[in-house]
Amino acid sequence: MGNINVGVIGVGRIGSMHARNLKYQVSGVNVLGVADVFEKAAQKVAKELAIPIAEKDYHILLENRDIDAVLICSSTDTHAKIISESAKAGKHIFCEKPIALDLKKIDEAIAAVEKAGVKLQVGFNRRFDPSFRKAKKMVAEGKIGTPHLVRISSRDPQPPPISYVKVSGGIFLDMMIHDFDMARYLLDQEVTEVMAMGNCLVDPAIGKAGDVDTAIVSLKYEGGALGAIDNSRQAVYGYDQRIEVFGSKGCIVVGNKKPTEVTVSGAEDVRNDKPVFFFIERYTESYLAEMEEFIRCIKEDTEPIVGGFDGKMAVLMGYAAKESLIKKGFKRVNFNQ
Amino acid sequence: MGNINVGVIGVGRIGSMHARNLKYQVSGVNVLGVADVFEKAAQKVAKELAIPIAEKDYHILLENRDIDAVLICSSTDTHAKIISESAKAGKHIFCEKPIALDLKKIDEAIAAVEKAGVKLQVGFNRRFDPSFRKAKKMVAEGKIGTPHLVRISSRDPQPPPISYVKVSGGIFLDMMIHDFDMARYLLDQEVTEVMAMGNCLVDPAIGKAGDVDTAIVSLKYEGGALGAIDNSRQAVYGYDQRIEVFGSKGCIVVGNKKPTEVTVSGAEDVRNDKPVFFFIERYTESYLAEMEEFIRCIKEDTEPIVGGFDGKMAVLMGYAAKESLIKKGFKRVNFNQ
Amino acid sequence: MGNINVGVIGVGRIGSMHARNLKYQVSGVNVLGVADVFEKAAQKVAKELAIPIAEKDYHILLENRDIDAVLICSSTDTHAKIISESAKAGKHIFCEKPIALDLKKIDEAIAAVEKAGVKLQVGFNRRFDPSFRKAKKMVAEGKIGTPHLVRISSRDPQPPPISYVKVSGGIFLDMMIHDFDMARYLLDQEVTEVMAMGNCLVDPAIGKAGDVDTAIVSLKYEGGALGAIDNSRQAVYGYDQRIEVFGSKGCIVVGNKKPTEVTVSGAEDVRNDKPVFFFIERYTESYLAEMEEFIRCIKEDTEPIVGGFDGKMAVLMGYAAKESLIKKGFKRVNFNQ
Amino acid sequence: MGNINVGVIGVGRIGSMHARNLKYQVSGVNVLGVADVFEKAAQKVAKELAIPIAEKDYHILLENRDIDAVLICSSTDTHAKIISESAKAGKHIFCEKPIALDLKKIDEAIAAVEKAGVKLQVGFNRRFDPSFRKAKKMVAEGKIGTPHLVRISSRDPQPPPISYVKVSGGIFLDMMIHDFDMARYLLDQEVTEVMAMGNCLVDPAIGKAGDVDTAIVSLKYEGGALGAIDNSRQAVYGYDQRIEVFGSKGCIVVGNKKPTEVTVSGAEDVRNDKPVFFFIERYTESYLAEMEEFIRCIKEDTEPIVGGFDGKMAVLMGYAAKESLIKKGFKRVNFNQ
Repeated sequence: MGNINVGVIGVGRIGSMHARNLKYQVSGVNVLGVADVFEKAAQKVAKELAIPIAEKDYHILLENRDIDAVLICSSTDTHAKIISESAKAGKHIFCEKPIALDLKKIDEAIAAVEKAGVKLQVGFNRRFDPSFRKAKKMVAEGKIGTPHLVRISSRDPQPPPISYVKVSGGIFLDMMIHDFDMARYLLDQEVTEVMAMGNCLVDPAIGKAGDVDTAIVSLKYEGGALGAIDNSRQAVYGYDQRIEVFGSKGCIVVGNKKPTEVTVSGAEDVRNDKPVFFFIERYTESYLAEMEEFIRCIKEDTEPIVGGFDGKMAVLMGYAAKESLIKKGFKRVNFNQ
Repeated sequence: MGNINVGVIGVGRIGSMHARNLKYQVSGVNVLGVADVFEKAAQKVAKELAIPIAEKDYHILLENRDIDAVLICSSTDTHAKIISESAKAGKHIFCEKPIALDLKKIDEAIAAVEKAGVKLQVGFNRRFDPSFRKAKKMVAEGKIGTPHLVRISSRDPQPPPISYVKVSGGIFLDMMIHDFDMARYLLDQEVTEVMAMGNCLVDPAIGKAGDVDTAIVSLKYEGGALGAIDNSRQAVYGYDQRIEVFGSKGCIVVGNKKPTEVTVSGAEDVRNDKPVFFFIERYTESYLAEMEEFIRCIKEDTEPIVGGFDGKMAVLMGYAAKESLIKKGFKRVNFNQ
Repeated sequence: MGNINVGVIGVGRIGSMHARNLKYQVSGVNVLGVADVFEKAAQKVAKELAIPIAEKDYHILLENRDIDAVLICSSTDTHAKIISESAKAGKHIFCEKPIALDLKKIDEAIAAVEKAGVKLQVGFNRRFDPSFRKAKKMVAEGKIGTPHLVRISSRDPQPPPISYVKVSGGIFLDMMIHDFDMARYLLDQEVTEVMAMGNCLVDPAIGKAGDVDTAIVSLKYEGGALGAIDNSRQAVYGYDQRIEVFGSKGCIVVGNKKPTEVTVSGAEDVRNDKPVFFFIERYTESYLAEMEEFIRCIKEDTEPIVGGFDGKMAVLMGYAAKESLIKKGFKRVNFNQ
Repeated sequence: MGNINVGVIGVGRIGSMHARNLKYQVSGVNVLGVADVFEKAAQKVAKELAIPIAEKDYHILLENRDIDAVLICSSTDTHAKIISESAKAGKHIFCEKPIALDLKKIDEAIAAVEKAGVKLQVGFNRRFDPSFRKAKKMVAEGKIGTPHLVRISSRDPQPPPISYVKVSGGIFLDMMIHDFDMARYLLDQEVTEVMAMGNCLVDPAIGKAGDVDTAIVSLKYEGGALGAIDNSRQAVYGYDQRIEVFGSKGCIVVGNKKPTEVTVSGAEDVRNDKPVFFFIERYTESYLAEMEEFIRCIKEDTEPIVGGFDGKMAVLMGYAAKESLIKKGFKRVNFNQ
């Protein structure tokens, strides 16, 4: 199979990063066009990366018969619609998370993909992080026996703007959704029950916007294992992304990534670097690896390791957690929803 | 004030360790007598440590006017009664945890202590561990700002015998009770809500005995902070005792203690020691420090940092967790119980 | 100033890596041509990276008036000659280490560069490693006070082929030369005395080729500090690259880089990744950063932080170490050589 | 065999620590008497530890037929003479390092011990440290294959008083002597060559006293391995005691011991405890273990793992290093001296 021709829809921070990765670091792919509702953004990225097509309207990319696949990196509320349109146009699809906040729209998008027989990969990039991937592989190989406990800490260096918080769907659907996916990924099992606690401790404005900024969710897996995820919108020491899987034969812990390996011993204490700043620095390798995986799946006609169903399950878990928080009790995750 | 004369009631593993620590490593104290329902145990310890009195009946110690204070290290079901009797006899009291599993008995014991005006210190030794103590001190000094999240992992190297499980009161009252106390200690705040998840994953016999062996409990503090405690009856890599306090200005993590500082790099990987085996090795220093504190409190007439109220609160949290597990929902901790 | 046009002479592993870095990751530069005595290698790299010119004879690049700068990545014995020719042709020069093994040739090359007034940067890439750079910066800022001791460990995962050992100039001029440069860089001071011990412990064939494969060199700096460098041609656990600077106010240690942050606790021990495999993985960032520095120096007309004099000093130290090993005694480094 | 009766000669900091360890933590031993030229010191220790005999003149202990063994913890210049006298009196001997600074006196003391057929254990306590002992055991078991390189860092938190420096024999015989013993112990091999570099960087008064305060010594072992030891009289971050053994199949590193396992992540960096303060804190366990070993050797009639020959070899290495420093060259260690 020849090179895959790709169009990128939405070239904000993430979209342009993907375009750059595809252009310079992934082999067997051409970036043929970009589209953005801010036409100047499209033109700027196209110029920088020598991409021939730059459009305001993404439909032009969908109509272009040379384009085999699209990346959907536009705003969340447009994802489901563009997935359906792209599927109908016969394009393979990489879509940033979440597919949608509305479950019906998610189902429609997935149905459109299935009908068209195209690939759909959802942007849960953390699955491609070398450390988490190694952890998951060791769990799958039985290195720690039967899993009993999963712990995930995920804390951002700073909260998003309040304007964003308001449309984000809340901490469970916007931030912890990554951890819900990670929880499923690590054990390759579904979560059947969740119990949430949350509070607004970082910024009262987040509370006024109807959200919490600090949360702990307990999980029960179908296989009986238990889990706990904690989130905070603000860790002053940087992006804190740790996981732990404890089983009958051992325990795997994944720690944070630091910018250097320097340790300084002084009269007071011994000091090391704090973790790297945020997701761009932390997940550099995983953003690249998910693009390589997407292109490989198209070329070899295999299914992405993170597809439409995964996109839906993480949203379902988010809604269950939200409901648990309100009702102050455990909540069963309803797979048949 | 002269030397404090102490009697030790119950000289099993813990009681004899305390006697030895008092004899050889705490200054300003004499161990005048020991008592144990297994008279031979009393005689053996007395001989080894050159303690003048060895009795089967602890009442003889209580009647001995030279004895200023007693350590109650007998079986749990006898604690409350001996506390009351010791208080009436005017002895200062160190009692192993828990005071009792019956809340009414706890209240009676505390009332007897208050009436007699003697000291009562409860054996939550972990408060005296140098690492946890430093962590608590830093939290109190505001080093990490306002606390937002507390995480505690506590996993034993092996489960106790089933016969013990049956009378232990269950994982929440026997094992996690230490972590409930640690949770309160670290923030110097009460916990107002708990939510528990549990399962029997280590040994089906524990389930048959009506208990779980793996549990996660989420906490909400009166100040709004959230917490999560996880327990397992069996960590094959040794005694896993870690805590984390995350706040507005930083995060404190306390890791495990290892027997050596040896690291071996080989063709496969880099290897370090697993943690020390169990509580005797892990908490050597804290068992000694709690004795020093008890003797100091008597000499200087100050209150122990861990008293009867603390002993009661941890039991209350244990019952709340137990109820939450059964009812599958959050449970308010009832202080007025 | 517009884009810098670069020609790459020698496109083996290092040369093609530099070409790729310049092409995709350094801004403000065009790779206009490549040359290699293996013409097919030149053509292959040119095709892959869409570089217009691919020649067997590097003189064609030197004659090309559009080319502003060259990278000399050919075999060591050609470096000095090509530096002189490039300087005469008015090209700025980046040259892989060492400039030459013959001190007279080094002097001639440096003289040619000075006469032509072009830039010369020598490929001691480790100076650009984020960890070492941070260490050096902290030393310069006085964070550890006056330096007293420097320790450098540098161990390769596997020895080079014997054919290479024979022409390499020996362990001091081929391998430890990087550490000699690092030693000077860290303290920004000259080394005035060296004492070497060495032995052939890894492979007898290296001994037969007249070289040692394991060596320790002690250093004395002009400011009085002492240092020790150890080298081994074979560390089975990967590329071991550590440094330590100890001073009157503290100590900086730089540890190894690992591929993941995974820790696995099992019934036997606790395991982590061994270091990354070799220089390509370890110094990815520094290879890129030295290219950025080279282009920046040309554009801003500043001197490279590692120039011809640095290239010469490291060779002088290598010869002094070699002589010390033979004579079994200390050896003064002769700056006026 | 019954309890061993011990007399302690010299009850300064080390002597009284040994007496306390024997009294409270070693079984099968009685401390029958203490002697000290400062009679009040003897009386004070005797009173504290309930030791029956306290004398000014140690000969009274030697004449006491109930005493089986003596600890010689008096000033260095008296060691050899008291060893000879104790041997003649038929006492087993534990002697603090060094036996003497005068090689002839060492030989005489060893001869007296051999003639009397008593045990002599020299106080190289570090051999009994759990971490170093584990490292040595792994080397002996071939876990890292054939040893190629040994590195030892040994840095004190603060220099001794100048009055002490003047009579100490210098850094090589007073401080590095421990590392010379460690070097021999780790590989169970003799060192045949040494090369020293030294300087006075910490305190000019040490230089005026004819000594250096910072030193690096390179070693060559009889088996061909190389080593490097560095010493500093002042590490502001505490007692720095690290070793490394690198071999054909891997590398063992022993790091420092810290008072707690607390890590604090803040807005600036991540902080840990600095190492424990000094030898009393660092080697608590090894001081106890060497006493247990001494008593065990007497009871089981076996040879101590660190005897008179070891005491002599470390001194020989110290003199060789001293000579190398003065002559600026390598120095063969003369076993036949």
